[in-house]
Amino acid sequence: MKRTVTVGNVLLGGDQPVRIQSMTNTDTADVEATAAQINALAAAGCEIIRVAAYDVHSAQSIAKIKQKCSIPIVADVHFDHKIAIAAIEAGADKVRINPGNIGSEDRIRMVADAAKMHGIPIRVGANSGSLGKAYRGMDKSEALVQSALENIRILEKIGFEDIVIALKASDVAASVRAYRKMDALTDYPLHLGITEAGAYESSIVKSAMGIGALLLDGIGDTLRVSITGDPVQEIRAAKEILQCAGRRTFSPELIACPTCGRTRIDLEALYHQVKALTQDIPQYLKIAVMGCVVNGPGEARDADIGIAGGEGFGLIFKKGVPVAKVPEAELIPVFEKELKELLQ
Amino acid sequence: MKRTVTVGNVLLGGDQPVRIQSMTNTDTADVEATAAQINALAAAGCEIIRVAAYDVHSAQSIAKIKQKCSIPIVADVHFDHKIAIAAIEAGADKVRINPGNIGSEDRIRMVADAAKMHGIPIRVGANSGSLGKAYRGMDKSEALVQSALENIRILEKIGFEDIVIALKASDVAASVRAYRKMDALTDYPLHLGITEAGAYESSIVKSAMGIGALLLDGIGDTLRVSITGDPVQEIRAAKEILQCAGRRTFSPELIACPTCGRTRIDLEALYHQVKALTQDIPQYLKIAVMGCVVNGPGEARDADIGIAGGEGFGLIFKKGVPVAKVPEAELIPVFEKELKELLQ
Repeated sequence: MKRTVTVGNVLLGGDQPVRIQSMTNTDTADVEATAAQINALAAAGCEIIRVAAYDVHSAQSIAKIKQKCSIPIVADVHFDHKIAIAAIEAGADKVRINPGNIGSEDRIRMVADAAKMHGIPIRVGANSGSLGKAYRGMDKSEALVQSALENIRILEKIGFEDIVIALKASDVAASVRAYRKMDALTDYPLHLGITEAGAYESSIVKSAMGIGALLLDGIGDTLRVSITGDPVQEIRAAKEILQCAGRRTFSPELIACPTCGRTRIDLEALYHQVKALTQDIPQYLKIAVMGCVVNGPGEARDADIGIAGGEGFGLIFKKGVPVAKVPEAELIPVFEKELKELLQ
Repeated sequence: MKRTVTVGNVLLGGDQPVRIQSMTNTDTADVEATAAQINALAAAGCEIIRVAAYDVHSAQSIAKIKQKCSIPIVADVHFDHKIAIAAIEAGADKVRINPGNIGSEDRIRMVADAAKMHGIPIRVGANSGSLGKAYRGMDKSEALVQSALENIRILEKIGFEDIVIALKASDVAASVRAYRKMDALTDYPLHLGITEAGAYESSIVKSAMGIGALLLDGIGDTLRVSITGDPVQEIRAAKEILQCAGRRTFSPELIACPTCGRTRIDLEALYHQVKALTQDIPQYLKIAVMGCVVNGPGEARDADIGIAGGEGFGLIFKKGVPVAKVPEAELIPVFEKELKELLQ
């Protein structure tokens, strides 16, 4: 098990749930816009938010943003240790530095001293797009690991162990290899992500694969799904990935067959009606919508509530027991009634 | 390495590329509709197609469907070995039987004898929704493996080794565990899939995670993405998953940053313009669309062609070399020109 790290009012690592993070894409110096985006993300389920501190002024804005928001704020810093120190002094709950570009050992130590004084963790976030020159040409996963370890050793040398590690590549296989290596080498919590994954349609495949492969193996303490566009999408994707990997639950799971030459019912229509009825239920339920007798009864038996279609009719199952056999046209009203009873 | 199996005019297993499969959802007895769907799927990139043989008549339709289609056809059979035999006699290129419901050892042997005489492989397709009674209550991944192995042993006993194995569960973690176990136990090619994954939005997460986790570990010889709805979507999803896992390439990969408080360019608009210009290119290219100087130059250096945005302008990179610095408004025309040259 990894160490537990405190990020503002949120614990991360140890036996804590895998925490959902995102990053604002507003100008951090625009306090109103940034706070509004953070609050929208928090309402969607974001637990820790990162903002780009791109100069000292934007770093100082964190103090004002914190007055308007309740989730912990992480300052994302590149190139300049003075910005990191300004962010820490402005009340950042964690600071992310990039081993590829933050500079000399001296400068890292200055950031660590400030973080220690303010009792906040540092994320060492290595990124394949910004590796130091010494690591170019090396196997990408090895380069990510070595680059992060170099910074971690500097922090450890001065007694700073309040660390979270990220190893992000746009290449899924390299990311997964890097995280697996690092997981075996350290007990610092791991921040998962596949970086530069593109817009939703493309990011969801890369992120579900890369983050998912790690979560399935029990690796990962916090994650960010990286999507080009409105960051609120990142929260929905993160929840789906966590639930699919069996690591957290948020909403009903719909088990539905793909339909085939055996299907004698309009399963796709049923699926979308059931989805509309259930998608906003704020708890996990296993719901099966199955087209025929091959896998239908088996999946329905396993579900909290389910429909197994026949020819012009369907069976409604609840907790493994068939409770009604109804004509196709009445399946949805009867399902809705049974669902309501189940939820009471 | 797994054995190589011949499915009509397609090789599967061994050092062959991971083959893309789908399944029709037309009535198999409707020869015209089924052939039309198969041809649409083949045009999208489907390499092996499965059809439900739900009775003897539908099984016999395979002979007529084959006259209208060029990709190999797999008959999907449940409950009744006589349907399997009818499908084999009608020219099916492979038959899928389900160990949970195909019946006694005698019946499996009769199917194997027919398959052997016609020189076609059998897929033993275990499915969590239709496991035999003996396997209920057991750990789901173990039940899938044991149920498939029981059938495989029956086939091996009579000298039939032209086998492909699938172990499908709607539970991603159970599927992945089952395939990993089976991969270590046998050299028969593995058919990957997460079953009953729902409509596109939900299936893509489950399938990218489950199939992807296996592909990243080098497991899997053929796959089907299961989506409730038009099966052509399954082919697009399969290609995306294979490319992300680094197992096959089909089209350009777009590396794009999620944007943050540092971005001074309309990156989302640029991304979608680049996407529109490049999505139909029928070859792999690595294209980077990056917002700033943190990871932009690094990713662009790594790409075949890329844009790294600045404030009101951007750099165009080609094969790691900056070739032009242009105002934001001219980025797309210059990118398009450079892309055309690259493709020549």
